[in-house]
Amino acid sequence: MTRVPMEGKVLNENDQVAAELRAQFARHGVFAVNLISSPGSGKTALLERTLESFPPDRRVAVLTGDIQTDADAARLVKYGFPVRQITTAGACHLDARMVKRALEGWDLAALDLLFIENVGNLVCPTSYDLGEAKKIVLLSVTEGEEKPLKYPGIFHKAELMVLTKTDLLPYVPFRPEIAIQNARSIRPDIEVLQLSCQTKIGFRPWMEWIEAQTMAQTSDNRLR
Amino acid sequence: MTRVPMEGKVLNENDQVAAELRAQFARHGVFAVNLISSPGSGKTALLERTLESFPPDRRVAVLTGDIQTDADAARLVKYGFPVRQITTAGACHLDARMVKRALEGWDLAALDLLFIENVGNLVCPTSYDLGEAKKIVLLSVTEGEEKPLKYPGIFHKAELMVLTKTDLLPYVPFRPEIAIQNARSIRPDIEVLQLSCQTKIGFRPWMEWIEAQTMAQTSDNRLR
Repeated sequence: MTRVPMEGKVLNENDQVAAELRAQFARHGVFAVNLISSPGSGKTALLERTLESFPPDRRVAVLTGDIQTDADAARLVKYGFPVRQITTAGACHLDARMVKRALEGWDLAALDLLFIENVGNLVCPTSYDLGEAKKIVLLSVTEGEEKPLKYPGIFHKAELMVLTKTDLLPYVPFRPEIAIQNARSIRPDIEVLQLSCQTKIGFRPWMEWIEAQTMAQTSDNRLR
Repeated sequence: MTRVPMEGKVLNENDQVAAELRAQFARHGVFAVNLISSPGSGKTALLERTLESFPPDRRVAVLTGDIQTDADAARLVKYGFPVRQITTAGACHLDARMVKRALEGWDLAALDLLFIENVGNLVCPTSYDLGEAKKIVLLSVTEGEEKPLKYPGIFHKAELMVLTKTDLLPYVPFRPEIAIQNARSIRPDIEVLQLSCQTKIGFRPWMEWIEAQTMAQTSDNRLR
C-alpha cells in the first residue's frame, strides 16, 4: 500500500526525463526503439544479426541494459558501431535517467537509429518510458502462445511483436496464429513479424520495417 | 533514491509474514518449494507432468502466481489436487502476504508438499521470501548458457537448478556443461537436474529429489 505514491513519484520524474529524451531524439532525427522481452528471447541475437547486415557507414548505435554483466555489449561491439552497456545494479528495468546518462558524450546528430535493449523482463520495463519512438516486444516460439494474455501490459504498449526462433517451430507445440490472435486481443493493431536469427528466414521484412521507420523519423525531422 | 527505505520496509514486513509461514509449514510437516524462472521456461509444464505422476492420494497442493490470468490454475486443476491461483494485479512477483491469504481455509495438516509457482520473472521474485523450504530455478535450454551470470541473484539463492526442454538440445547452441559451470560460479553447491517435459527423459531424478526432500521435511517434523 505504502509503495503506491512513491512509485507514482518515481514515474513522474522518469516521464519528465523521457520527454526530454524524446524531444532530443526528434530534434536530431534519431529513431529510438526500446526492445523488451523475457530473458533469453533473443534480443541480443536479433541485434547481432541486424548490425552485421548494415553497411559500415550506417548511422546506428546501441545501448544495452543488464543487471550485472557487460556480456551483451561485448557481443555487440564487434560489429563496429557505437555500443554502450548500462548496468542497472539490481534494477529489473532501464529508466530514462540511465539512458540519458549513457548517452552523455555521444553526438546524436551523427545517428539515425538507436536500439535500446532493455533488461530481460516482461513486466518491469513496461512502465518506464525511455523516450523511444516505438516499443518492440520479442516473443520466442519456445515460450508459449499464451504469453500476450499473461503479460498484457507490454503487448498493449508495443507497436510491433517479433516472434523469434521460428527455426524451432517444428519441435515445439507453438502455433504462431494463436499467439498473434492473443496479441491482437490485447492490441488489435499490433504489427507482427516472424523470424529466425539462426536461418535468417523472415529477416528481410524486419530490416525493411526498421529502415522504413527510421526514414519516416528522419523526414519528419526535415519537415520541421 | 527515495525508494530504498520503502523497499526495506516492505521487505521487513514480508520477512515477518514469511517467517510465520515457514513456522506453519514446519509444524505441519509441509515441504514448500518456490519455483522461479523466466516466462516460458516451463514451470507450469513441469508441474503438470509432476502432478500426473503422483498417485491420487498424494498429499500435494499448488499455488500458482500470475499477473493477470488464471490460465495456469485451469491447466493444473485437472489432475485432481488442490490448486489455487494468485493473481498479483500487476506485481512482478508473489509476496508472503499473498501466499498467506491464498492458504486461508486449507488444512495444512492434510498436506506434505506445496508447490508455489511464482510469476514468470528472473529478477523480482528473488527478493521475496515466501516461507518456502527451498527455491528452485528453472532454465530452459533455449534461453542461453549465460543466464546464471546475468541474473546471479536467483542462482545464488536457489538450491536446485532444473534445466528444462532438453529435447530441444539438438536444435539450439546451448551447452549444458557451460550453463552448469556458470551456475556453480555463482553458487558452488547448487544441485542440477536436466529434463524434458515432452519426452519425460530425466524425469525420474526430479521425482526422486522431490520425494526425498518431502520425506526429510516430514521426518524432521516427527522428530520435533
